[in-house]
Amino acid sequence: MKEPAIVLHSGGQDSTTCLVWALKKFKKIHVISFDYGQRHKTELSAAGAIAKKLGLPHKTIKLPVIKELTKNALTDKTIKITAGKNFPSTFVDGRNALFLNVAAIYAKQKGIKNLVTGVCQTDYSGYPDCREDFIRSMQKTLSLAMDFPFKIHTPLMFLTKAESVKLMGKLGRLDLLKYTHTCYEGMRPACGKCPACKLRLKGFKEAGIIDPIPYN
Amino acid sequence: MKEPAIVLHSGGQDSTTCLVWALKKFKKIHVISFDYGQRHKTELSAAGAIAKKLGLPHKTIKLPVIKELTKNALTDKTIKITAGKNFPSTFVDGRNALFLNVAAIYAKQKGIKNLVTGVCQTDYSGYPDCREDFIRSMQKTLSLAMDFPFKIHTPLMFLTKAESVKLMGKLGRLDLLKYTHTCYEGMRPACGKCPACKLRLKGFKEAGIIDPIPYN
Repeated sequence: MKEPAIVLHSGGQDSTTCLVWALKKFKKIHVISFDYGQRHKTELSAAGAIAKKLGLPHKTIKLPVIKELTKNALTDKTIKITAGKNFPSTFVDGRNALFLNVAAIYAKQKGIKNLVTGVCQTDYSGYPDCREDFIRSMQKTLSLAMDFPFKIHTPLMFLTKAESVKLMGKLGRLDLLKYTHTCYEGMRPACGKCPACKLRLKGFKEAGIIDPIPYN
Repeated sequence: MKEPAIVLHSGGQDSTTCLVWALKKFKKIHVISFDYGQRHKTELSAAGAIAKKLGLPHKTIKLPVIKELTKNALTDKTIKITAGKNFPSTFVDGRNALFLNVAAIYAKQKGIKNLVTGVCQTDYSGYPDCREDFIRSMQKTLSLAMDFPFKIHTPLMFLTKAESVKLMGKLGRLDLLKYTHTCYEGMRPACGKCPACKLRLKGFKEAGIIDPIPYN
């Protein structure tokens, strides 16, 4: 019997692919997004539109604490988007941990143990909280914290961006990708130059599929 | 050489004991407290007063997301404080995980790896996020999430409440306990009847020390 699940949805390509993947595997999907003062806040309207298109309940949870406490290019427009020294300037300390933490709290209130997230180790771009060992540790920590058997699903963990695009094709919903937002700069049409845009474009190119969103 | 540390401080007896313990072990202590819509919000003024008395910087971080998402007797005054069925009604899902997560984000911005918290397995009152196995798992998770070697210190983990009172005596700061707030009902003088008051009174009694705060 299919179980319910919470899908963490940024409005981007990866989490939209996860959402479609989850629709096959689970029933009663709840979609949640986080407003943390991101530069590319426009992704939240993309997330809402995609959830609506799929007829799924969508909740945006405000986490202003991230912008309040951290200093990085995603929550501070005065910082340039660069590859950085130890971390990319777009790495937001503790963001995925906090997202999963809050998602798990939300899930437990509904008696839901499955959490789905689009993190990916292959193209992890230097973000430590996108790696498998973090996710496994987080799953254990959250289960211990609330004495509840959470399961974190990461269908894209070991896929390349090209394989993610192909997965969406296999799931029969390539059409949805035109509603996704990826650009870190928050531009529509997308800038095509930031690391997120570049990674996306490279993935589509390698998959031999045309990216349906407009670029500048 | 002594390192800096962040102390998570509720304004209660346990975290005040941890704060005094940390003063001996670390230098440059930063005190943080969380405003999460708790019934006993008065504890935050106790936390501020104690930090001030010790001449330490104190920051209160707002986490309204806890009250928004969870349903329990600490964030909802219409729910009675009881022992509950599976969990006490005062258990706040994911609270300690979230506190440590946010504290770690804050700490990393300052280059601080030591976090001190007053959780205690001995008198853990049915709260899974006060146990040693959770703390060890959390430490690993946070370190992986931010690629930073956090260390979570829990000096009270295996002490009884009576031993905690005695520890404060040994540290020479029993005088500070009169500024602490414990009562879940948020009452000053304390109610003396809620589980938190009862546990506190029992600890002082067993330690053979008179609790300096007034009770109703």
